[in-house]
Amino acid sequence: MDKYIITQGSGTSKYDLNAFDKALLDSGIADYNLVKLSSILPANCQKVNAVDLPKGSFLHTAFSKYVENRPGITISAAVAIAIPKDRSLPGVIMEASGDYDLETANEIILSMVRIAMEARGITEYDIEKDSISMKTKDGFNCVVAAVSIW
Amino acid sequence: MDKYIITQGSGTSKYDLNAFDKALLDSGIADYNLVKLSSILPANCQKVNAVDLPKGSFLHTAFSKYVENRPGITISAAVAIAIPKDRSLPGVIMEASGDYDLETANEIILSMVRIAMEARGITEYDIEKDSISMKTKDGFNCVVAAVSIW
Amino acid sequence: MDKYIITQGSGTSKYDLNAFDKALLDSGIADYNLVKLSSILPANCQKVNAVDLPKGSFLHTAFSKYVENRPGITISAAVAIAIPKDRSLPGVIMEASGDYDLETANEIILSMVRIAMEARGITEYDIEKDSISMKTKDGFNCVVAAVSIW
Repeated sequence: MDKYIITQGSGTSKYDLNAFDKALLDSGIADYNLVKLSSILPANCQKVNAVDLPKGSFLHTAFSKYVENRPGITISAAVAIAIPKDRSLPGVIMEASGDYDLETANEIILSMVRIAMEARGITEYDIEKDSISMKTKDGFNCVVAAVSIW
Repeated sequence: MDKYIITQGSGTSKYDLNAFDKALLDSGIADYNLVKLSSILPANCQKVNAVDLPKGSFLHTAFSKYVENRPGITISAAVAIAIPKDRSLPGVIMEASGDYDLETANEIILSMVRIAMEARGITEYDIEKDSISMKTKDGFNCVVAAVSIW
Repeated sequence: MDKYIITQGSGTSKYDLNAFDKALLDSGIADYNLVKLSSILPANCQKVNAVDLPKGSFLHTAFSKYVENRPGITISAAVAIAIPKDRSLPGVIMEASGDYDLETANEIILSMVRIAMEARGITEYDIEKDSISMKTKDGFNCVVAAVSIW
């Protein structure tokens, strides 16, 4: 476990799970076997741009998804990682999603990682963040924000 | 990860989690440590009839369960795998459950795997499917449909 | 997989996921990457007092959490393991949580593991149990009870 990506995506389909699948395709992690994770970035993990595992591999992923089947609603998902300046310490991943706009999602997720660092007594850290927003259409709509680690 | 089973089961008990446990016993996968998976069948994976791991092992499983505590209701769960004719490509697993009958569950799950293949631009594939339906009794009732991969 | 801990904790915060994070800090398992597990204790697994893996490691964990954002409510979480006297058989972990008191949580969880043993035809077994209760404050409140296996 020394690599990670931070990603997001959205999708719309006739069924809930297909909307999620399309959001994962949009995120670049649909063809892996996601194992849901909560929510630590191991020390000395390096950010990369894409998953370099064979398709179908297990991929440990912290994510938040939001599904909405009413049209015309703004929905958002965000994920952030607080990475201690002391790189020997693990980071904390927080994820959030809901029927709010991108600015709200960004505010919430920053507040969440700050609280998580405060709870651990860590004051010096960097933050990485990714987020997505969409206006829902007819059918099921899904936004997802994710951190995958391998 | 070169073997999988496709299975289903049902159970009724005083508590939600015990109904799920009985449905897993009925499915033949209760004595493993299920790690929830979403939802890719690795390329060149072979179907077998039973799990041949020691009891208590971790077993990566894509599943859908539905729990209902009102009596006299029809509930169903279904799972399907679309396996590309080009066996070097991964397959896609879809799962669904709800308070509908078996025929509806089968229609939904077939539609879901077709949409997932369409989303990947794959037109040639086989489908495997399993599903279960029950009429609920007093207590908590659970139906589960699952694909386990190891 | 030959070690386990049984633990519990509580936390309160501005956000749902931070309340869960604080409950995990209180439980001593927050700095691991929890992979949710259901719910078997492998044969010949030994109980220890703390996780001895590097921080950030994957930690397979069966848990139940309850989150409540109304103040002044009693919420509880409990976990129990039924361990067959025949130590070559796997044990069964059950977890429960809700807006009930500690005594109720303890009664429910004992009843659940007994039903799980009965469903397997096992009559001779020991039970281990841990539980927690809190009166909720302003904000999001979380109780968690967990068994981690590694």
